[in-house]
Amino acid sequence: MNTPNGKVEARKLKGFRDYLPKAAVTRQEITARVRHVASLAGFQEIDTPAIEYADVLLGSGGGDTDKEVYRFTDHGDRAVALRFDLTIPFARFVTENHNDLVFPFKKLQIGDVWRGEKPQKGRYRQFCQADLDIIGVDSLEADVEVVSCLFAIVNSLIPDTQRFVVSLNNRLILSGIITSFFPEVDNGQEQKILIAIDKLQKIGKEAVAAMIAEISGDLATAYALLQCLEPQQDGAIAWESIEDRLKNSPALSEIKRFRQTVAILQKLTKGSKGTITPALNVARGLGYYTGIVFETTITGLPGFGSVSSGGRYGNLVGRFGKHDLSGVGGSIGVDRFLAALEELAVPGKVKGAKVFIALASEDAVSYAFTLANALREKGIATDIALKPGKLGNQFKYADKLAIPYVVTLGSDEVQANTYSVKHLASGIDERNLSFEALLQKLG
Amino acid sequence: MNTPNGKVEARKLKGFRDYLPKAAVTRQEITARVRHVASLAGFQEIDTPAIEYADVLLGSGGGDTDKEVYRFTDHGDRAVALRFDLTIPFARFVTENHNDLVFPFKKLQIGDVWRGEKPQKGRYRQFCQADLDIIGVDSLEADVEVVSCLFAIVNSLIPDTQRFVVSLNNRLILSGIITSFFPEVDNGQEQKILIAIDKLQKIGKEAVAAMIAEISGDLATAYALLQCLEPQQDGAIAWESIEDRLKNSPALSEIKRFRQTVAILQKLTKGSKGTITPALNVARGLGYYTGIVFETTITGLPGFGSVSSGGRYGNLVGRFGKHDLSGVGGSIGVDRFLAALEELAVPGKVKGAKVFIALASEDAVSYAFTLANALREKGIATDIALKPGKLGNQFKYADKLAIPYVVTLGSDEVQANTYSVKHLASGIDERNLSFEALLQKLG
Repeated sequence: MNTPNGKVEARKLKGFRDYLPKAAVTRQEITARVRHVASLAGFQEIDTPAIEYADVLLGSGGGDTDKEVYRFTDHGDRAVALRFDLTIPFARFVTENHNDLVFPFKKLQIGDVWRGEKPQKGRYRQFCQADLDIIGVDSLEADVEVVSCLFAIVNSLIPDTQRFVVSLNNRLILSGIITSFFPEVDNGQEQKILIAIDKLQKIGKEAVAAMIAEISGDLATAYALLQCLEPQQDGAIAWESIEDRLKNSPALSEIKRFRQTVAILQKLTKGSKGTITPALNVARGLGYYTGIVFETTITGLPGFGSVSSGGRYGNLVGRFGKHDLSGVGGSIGVDRFLAALEELAVPGKVKGAKVFIALASEDAVSYAFTLANALREKGIATDIALKPGKLGNQFKYADKLAIPYVVTLGSDEVQANTYSVKHLASGIDERNLSFEALLQKLG
Repeated sequence: MNTPNGKVEARKLKGFRDYLPKAAVTRQEITARVRHVASLAGFQEIDTPAIEYADVLLGSGGGDTDKEVYRFTDHGDRAVALRFDLTIPFARFVTENHNDLVFPFKKLQIGDVWRGEKPQKGRYRQFCQADLDIIGVDSLEADVEVVSCLFAIVNSLIPDTQRFVVSLNNRLILSGIITSFFPEVDNGQEQKILIAIDKLQKIGKEAVAAMIAEISGDLATAYALLQCLEPQQDGAIAWESIEDRLKNSPALSEIKRFRQTVAILQKLTKGSKGTITPALNVARGLGYYTGIVFETTITGLPGFGSVSSGGRYGNLVGRFGKHDLSGVGGSIGVDRFLAALEELAVPGKVKGAKVFIALASEDAVSYAFTLANALREKGIATDIALKPGKLGNQFKYADKLAIPYVVTLGSDEVQANTYSVKHLASGIDERNLSFEALLQKLG
């Protein structure tokens, strides 16, 4: 889009965002927190390229066009694509680097992914995710570890005034229940029913029942199924009746593991800002889950959707055929979380300088930089006059940036080897400070 | 590339790399260091999308195909491209967000860029850069600030056994010297001579002289020019003769500013691992520089090339036409630095856990997670058995991950509410520890 004078119009693509300092700092704090908590739990960070062969990301069938993958042909005429999640690149990574990893492998990956979906409030076409996975093991312990780490991360990110809920389900139990109501449905139909159940929050019970009736041909049973998935009035799940219903199903044995998982997680998370809640009506749309599934909602943001979700999956690397590695994993949506904090009007903090060095005369410039260096080495964030000239303008700049202190250097200070410092808010001026006295003032 | 059984071959694109935990941690440390130093100097972090309109990145002419920009058409039929540097997206950012910024604006941006250039050792088609810029001011202070911050970053990243050199030049002085030898060359030819001089390190004096002779038609003068750009035998620059040579050139006034810049920087960086060296033969290929230019080489890696470079530029946002903002900036190549550290065989450190919790019996699992949580909350990195079963295998896993301590939990420990801990390297076992005693041991 050229303007008439041959200039280009400065504009972003729809669905993409800039990060001004406040948002950039908050985003940085989110990823730093994720890294800290994950590293304390022994997760190892890895990363993979943003661009991969299209068939690596999309399979030999080239499927999953739902996500509106950014695909193109590169300079070498290769069909390539931008990663649309971190899971498939991780599967490729594990297959290629299998010999360099110790299994079970606990990984953290933080990175941007791209999806050309219709942009919505708080949802962009480029967004950063943080994924925790444990692969090479199918155990209750691994399930607990992933969910509790993601829980700890959300707990540390959310403001103290907020609460959150991690809703936990098990795909095998859910499938068992569906089959017990509709013994005649095939796998494809069951997937469609799962996807319908996944929409409960968004479109409500009536619409979901209608969707299930369309698949199964039976509206009354659809309602009965949805009824069965709801918690009792006291919020608990009627496990006895579920066990009774699944008594001939392979899913029966999963109930014990699932209830133990929930019990351990509930005990672990007592006294935190979050709650672990078993919820049989949580489906998570994706086809590949084979055990627990979970999602996380912030109580004060109804309708905002999940900020962290995941589940147990079967052979992650099946597409590449060399190994058989199942696992459990989940994502924190870094940009989703940033949007949630913005929505909650949590004020982001720009890390500004603590002190500004103003220049009263040009011959103090070398001295000023020496002082700046000395303060920075002591960990004091220091800005310095970049536009020498009127002192008033220099003070205005410091004020605009909300820098609390200004040290003014001129020939006098250079000669005396002392410092004058002014606290802008109070207007209090102190003169003839030694470097040590200045440090103490600012430290 | 499908394998015969319909599977996909797990493979990366040429010129792209995976980051295994060791490299990922080192890369993380580099960016954390950059953020720390830049933030102490009052630089504000921002970020921009990876994908932009092609004309925003490439100008209305669509030029700069040198960098083999990744260009394609998106779902909405828009001509788009992946960013190939952080400078042009920053120009777009400044134009769009002009009213939300305080000028002079000191920015930090860390992000990946993509160039389809021929991959070489230590150079990839996706690489991370960290850019520091100060825009909205043309002053010696801004030049000093950017160079000294980048210097401080390199100084903090480089191993103590290594030394580095920041070679500093001024584009106006260099142009003045070229014109004094070849008064008849036009702008385009001068650019070509600059590009030839830029290749001095790579291809040597003879080849560069030949290139210049081809442009100017005069080999003897080409040699005289190159001679003039070389330092004297004592390493210093013969400023008097340069001033004499430029006495009728507008570049003459730049010499004072340049020499003062060098003097301040040399004073500031005394006693560090690096040296500031004026070097008239440093050109930096890009056409847009209008003042100082600089590059940074690690002494122990001759031929590796620059790890940090930049310079002063004219109107950064000229392409977008709305404002007139000059500035000074430079990049640290994050992935270049990672490659340099790998080349120097600086051992990367994986942040492993300090203690592993082994499970002697399944009924200790909830207790084990409670202990893991308690240790993690105290800042002790703690891993936990994910594959219950033989204790021997659990110890082997801890050993493979070089986790120094193992706490074994069984029914006895749960009942007694005490802990047994083993130091794997020494084999020393301690039993019946209280939680506090365990903390002290591991803390």
